[in-house]
Amino acid sequence: MNLNYLLYEQNNKIGIVSLNRPEKRNALSRGLLEELAELLTEIGTEKKVNVIIVKGIGKVFSAGHDLKEVYECEPQELLQLFQTCYYTMRVIREMPQPVIAQVHGVATAAGCQLVAACDLAVASEDALFGTPGVKIGLFCSTPAVFLSRNIGRKKAMEMLLTGDFMSARDALLYGLVNKVVASGELEEVTQNMAATIAGYSASAIAVGKRAFYQQINMEDFQALNYASEVITLNSTTKDAREGISAFLKKRQPKWSD
Amino acid sequence: MNLNYLLYEQNNKIGIVSLNRPEKRNALSRGLLEELAELLTEIGTEKKVNVIIVKGIGKVFSAGHDLKEVYECEPQELLQLFQTCYYTMRVIREMPQPVIAQVHGVATAAGCQLVAACDLAVASEDALFGTPGVKIGLFCSTPAVFLSRNIGRKKAMEMLLTGDFMSARDALLYGLVNKVVASGELEEVTQNMAATIAGYSASAIAVGKRAFYQQINMEDFQALNYASEVITLNSTTKDAREGISAFLKKRQPKWSD
Amino acid sequence: MNLNYLLYEQNNKIGIVSLNRPEKRNALSRGLLEELAELLTEIGTEKKVNVIIVKGIGKVFSAGHDLKEVYECEPQELLQLFQTCYYTMRVIREMPQPVIAQVHGVATAAGCQLVAACDLAVASEDALFGTPGVKIGLFCSTPAVFLSRNIGRKKAMEMLLTGDFMSARDALLYGLVNKVVASGELEEVTQNMAATIAGYSASAIAVGKRAFYQQINMEDFQALNYASEVITLNSTTKDAREGISAFLKKRQPKWSD
Repeated sequence: MNLNYLLYEQNNKIGIVSLNRPEKRNALSRGLLEELAELLTEIGTEKKVNVIIVKGIGKVFSAGHDLKEVYECEPQELLQLFQTCYYTMRVIREMPQPVIAQVHGVATAAGCQLVAACDLAVASEDALFGTPGVKIGLFCSTPAVFLSRNIGRKKAMEMLLTGDFMSARDALLYGLVNKVVASGELEEVTQNMAATIAGYSASAIAVGKRAFYQQINMEDFQALNYASEVITLNSTTKDAREGISAFLKKRQPKWSD
Repeated sequence: MNLNYLLYEQNNKIGIVSLNRPEKRNALSRGLLEELAELLTEIGTEKKVNVIIVKGIGKVFSAGHDLKEVYECEPQELLQLFQTCYYTMRVIREMPQPVIAQVHGVATAAGCQLVAACDLAVASEDALFGTPGVKIGLFCSTPAVFLSRNIGRKKAMEMLLTGDFMSARDALLYGLVNKVVASGELEEVTQNMAATIAGYSASAIAVGKRAFYQQINMEDFQALNYASEVITLNSTTKDAREGISAFLKKRQPKWSD
Repeated sequence: MNLNYLLYEQNNKIGIVSLNRPEKRNALSRGLLEELAELLTEIGTEKKVNVIIVKGIGKVFSAGHDLKEVYECEPQELLQLFQTCYYTMRVIREMPQPVIAQVHGVATAAGCQLVAACDLAVASEDALFGTPGVKIGLFCSTPAVFLSRNIGRKKAMEMLLTGDFMSARDALLYGLVNKVVASGELEEVTQNMAATIAGYSASAIAVGKRAFYQQINMEDFQALNYASEVITLNSTTKDAREGISAFLKKRQPKWSD
């Protein structure tokens, strides 16, 4: 696949996607979003890697949509832009591999949405998160969706209504990111987390990721009943049989994929 | 509007509503709740202000329902009392302006519910939050609704089952309030937060507040699809066009309202 | 009732259930789960106690399902095992008394699920929580249900995807447990919390527990409307009348049960 807005490299079982428009602060233009959706779909289909890292080239993770593009769009094109963004988030959700956001600098508006939509996130201690659309009359309604599903309502509303940044420390406290580390350790810590996940059975991870998001919008016991079916089936797979057997015999498991 | 239980003042684009029954610890009697709903409805319709602060006169924010009134009510009147409370919370939710609770002293039972139901909350460091109905055989089932949607299940259940107070510090940690400040700074910090919001486009804020609560009860991608429609329409408004244009030209925006 | 896998003692109005398979790290075998469901059902029906504590005998709270049993099960038996686990969680949810998990050592996989499914939890400061199924190819899909409803999505996904332990301190911060105390104080603090709850009206607690979980999966104002009906009815009960009367007369209430 020919990449114009992204870089992609594979490091063992880890796929690393870099937003590569540093001169535009990695703005999520329609072109970039389409390319990102296409690349992730291909990675999800080919299954050469077990986990994905998404990061930004240059000074920031991503400053959100390209406002010049938004300004110049016709209404119908605008809807297509936001539907492309919707579609990209959906690909992240539905691909079998977990996606980790590696965040430095700032992640604002749709950039903050991208962090919230990823399965996991690691941030450097100086990273800042924001949904400042309100400052330009464009309330961050789409970022609000996953933001409000990551952090509490009050904190989400504060970010959305004031446009103030949230520090990395608060992002950790309120659940937007999983780890906060010194700038110099960001890459290594994220890679280590990815390597841990990449070492597990890819099929078990795929089943688990899918089931996690399926159950999360269900009523409690509808969810538990569904998850019981899922784990029963998972228990009978080759990898689970191998994993349990290895555990009982105190040896290392060998995954089929 | 003639006010018996409340005070109302307007400070530029900020409306300040004070619960004014200090001798009753600002108990949320049916009369007070009806007046509050009527006042907020009027403010929501007239749109003279862009943001509301709700605070209490005297030593506490609010001690909840008037227990003498509850004790003396006939069952049918009781249902009307709680339905009036329901209706008041609904007005807060549906009015276009954000509502900030400014909390000092204690906010208990329906008083705690009021804080949880507001869009934002600022508390003084000595403020206490509680749902102590369980101590008098009257489980705080109605406060439980927004409390459990602000803080986690376990902490909500702890407050509801033990009747113990939650400190301002924990209220911040678990997401019931947005900021905790020294007593002497409570008014100023709340006003500053209100002033920030009041300086933005009122129509963009109204769209955003409405969309936030509409999407929060939807399945994830139903929510994101809905929000995509909302932000597309928002992008075409006069204020968003002006805001984006001002941003691109590095000047201050001028809102139409 | 004859107990093979559990111990049960009654201390005033507190019922204490101990998982008693220390040589199996209190593995939640089908036999143990069936016994636990039956015992809790009986306690819920007889109403001799007002609150339940669940704890583990030996070095750990519970290490989850018995992997040897899982490995040796036929698929149909596996489904029955997980449905028994489902049923036991449902009994905890539907019994009128609150259930407090008292956690020491480790609570992993279905053991972690049990903590998450309880109404409240107290942990010793050295306790560890984990969902390490991913390490053996068996993603913790069932523990994910209540875990994701206790702590945020990102932290739940981190535990599920990495298999890493969560410390007691983080379990408190993210909402999996209510209190964290020194090892030597675990029993006393848990008993004190139980004693506080046991001192309240059992019927008010039963109404409140039931209403809390009924409303939590509803849309916001459907929930508040439902809770308004519940609290109206609760207000007319003998215990609420007595409790409010006692409060107004500044005397201690006497509960009918």
